[in-house]
Amino acid sequence: MSTHMDKDATKNEAPAYQTNFSQGMFMSAVEEKIARVLGEELPTGCEKPEVLIEAARHLCLAKGAKRIRPRLVSLYGEAMEISPLELLDISVAAEMIHAASLLHDDVVDESSLRRGLETVNCKWGNKVAVLAGDLVLSLGFILLNKYTPNIHRTAVRVVDAMTRAAMLEVQARGCLDFKLDGWYFIAEGKTAKLFSWCGQAVGFYVGDEEIAARFEKCGKHLGIAFQMADDLRDLQGSDPGKERFSDIRNFNPSFPILKAASINSDLHQEISQSWKSAELSQDEVTRLGEAVLRTGVADITIEALELEIKQAIDALGPYQDAQGTMEIVNWTKLLLGSVK
Amino acid sequence: MSTHMDKDATKNEAPAYQTNFSQGMFMSAVEEKIARVLGEELPTGCEKPEVLIEAARHLCLAKGAKRIRPRLVSLYGEAMEISPLELLDISVAAEMIHAASLLHDDVVDESSLRRGLETVNCKWGNKVAVLAGDLVLSLGFILLNKYTPNIHRTAVRVVDAMTRAAMLEVQARGCLDFKLDGWYFIAEGKTAKLFSWCGQAVGFYVGDEEIAARFEKCGKHLGIAFQMADDLRDLQGSDPGKERFSDIRNFNPSFPILKAASINSDLHQEISQSWKSAELSQDEVTRLGEAVLRTGVADITIEALELEIKQAIDALGPYQDAQGTMEIVNWTKLLLGSVK
Repeated sequence: MSTHMDKDATKNEAPAYQTNFSQGMFMSAVEEKIARVLGEELPTGCEKPEVLIEAARHLCLAKGAKRIRPRLVSLYGEAMEISPLELLDISVAAEMIHAASLLHDDVVDESSLRRGLETVNCKWGNKVAVLAGDLVLSLGFILLNKYTPNIHRTAVRVVDAMTRAAMLEVQARGCLDFKLDGWYFIAEGKTAKLFSWCGQAVGFYVGDEEIAARFEKCGKHLGIAFQMADDLRDLQGSDPGKERFSDIRNFNPSFPILKAASINSDLHQEISQSWKSAELSQDEVTRLGEAVLRTGVADITIEALELEIKQAIDALGPYQDAQGTMEIVNWTKLLLGSVK
Repeated sequence: MSTHMDKDATKNEAPAYQTNFSQGMFMSAVEEKIARVLGEELPTGCEKPEVLIEAARHLCLAKGAKRIRPRLVSLYGEAMEISPLELLDISVAAEMIHAASLLHDDVVDESSLRRGLETVNCKWGNKVAVLAGDLVLSLGFILLNKYTPNIHRTAVRVVDAMTRAAMLEVQARGCLDFKLDGWYFIAEGKTAKLFSWCGQAVGFYVGDEEIAARFEKCGKHLGIAFQMADDLRDLQGSDPGKERFSDIRNFNPSFPILKAASINSDLHQEISQSWKSAELSQDEVTRLGEAVLRTGVADITIEALELEIKQAIDALGPYQDAQGTMEIVNWTKLLLGSVK
């Protein structure tokens, strides 16, 4: 098994997974920790329920939560041969930074469903959702207080990038002339930066700047790949429980839509025209979505996706075969499989 | 002039103010820095204005901004005989943490006016206001990256307290049985914690935990005093440009209103009854406001205010007479004068 010290170790077949560490145990610890951080009573001096904490728990403890970011942290930790429990608070902080962004994004997008449940803004209103997001973010940052300063310093920069990307995403709606570097800016801010930080923080934790940079780079391409796949699955209608062509319907210039519009100027014209309306009919949405696919953008997107995946794996270097990070490699295969 | 080394120095008359430091210069530096931090272009890849930055600047650079928090930081810094310019980023961070809370509070309270201008939520909508608050907060935290970790670690705890207080304030509306310790919780979270941090951060900067604790305590009582005075001025109608009795109108259980209701059970009944309506007429608001004052709560509030001020000044200890912190003492006199 590769370690961060013997970088010249021969590539082995993954050994039988015989350690004390169990992903299951770790993820349980994550759930417990989130519940505990959000379990603190809010003194009110008034007979009213602790709505802020209740709302935060509603989102953060929803069964639909995939906990991708804590998993990433634990996988990088495994590769470093440290007990992921040492990284528990980094993992939970990552999840809370993510949750805070969801709470605010749902206010911004006026969404009604999240993780299979009513959104906080729907159930309790915008006031609660805004403040719940602020609370969850603060609590996430507080968890980082125990680690070296580089960890929180990079975390605040991630939130800055996420916020700017969220705003650009709002501004880009309906904008078919939105340049591709704007799409990347959003994908990086929205997803990739936090994925990056998950690995970078682990590198900082073990005190190895080179590893921090390596894992940061891996996370960046992983995040972009994640977004590309997400965009494509929307066109393919392969996400269960999600409405197909929702990017068309919601005027979101996704990666494949932007590509299709740049390939076919008639289609560009058609979508632009449609996107001037306040709302599109189901028929129009389907027609446009199918037209987008007919340009061949699925293959173009898959090609771009494969490139991002390759870059993510290359960034891992010798850790492609390490316990933990090899799971990230496996995950990219699943990601590709979800669109091919 | 007292220094933090010769604590037994004789109390002197304040010497003629002959230093290179000028409050005016420092406040100009603060304005410049805020403008610079918020001057960064947001790449869009799309021909749309940088609304997020524009909104942030609208609030942060409003002429009506009093910059109390940067001033506090500089005054503590003066007492430490350090160039306040070394504390510029702490000052600006304090202002940005404050501004971020205003951006979100205005969404939560659906306010339309702030610092003499239309609120961001009014002018650009809640989406922009929520994200502008997130951005300004991140940028504030990023400014703290250069200092020792205790400074940002305490800052994140302040934001946590501010958020909880903001939520409690929402929940407490209309609640006349709201206990006084709930009022203190709000006053501490809303105002006192950040005032505290302004001084504590300076203590951390000079590496003196005792001073940090002293200035923190001063700020706590200062902030509570500030809120009490604010509440009383609302009843007295002595804030120019602010509508009198707005706490009555908006169902806010302010300090004097809570006191009045606890003194006079008939009045308690009356206000409780009125507060069940969706809206109060001007006549009713005036009637109730004057009834509150007739209970003698102005004197009760002033007494409580004087106690907070005394505790704030006592906390300063030998720094009551130091250049910089003596201005804080002077300011408490002005605060008291604003309600007497």
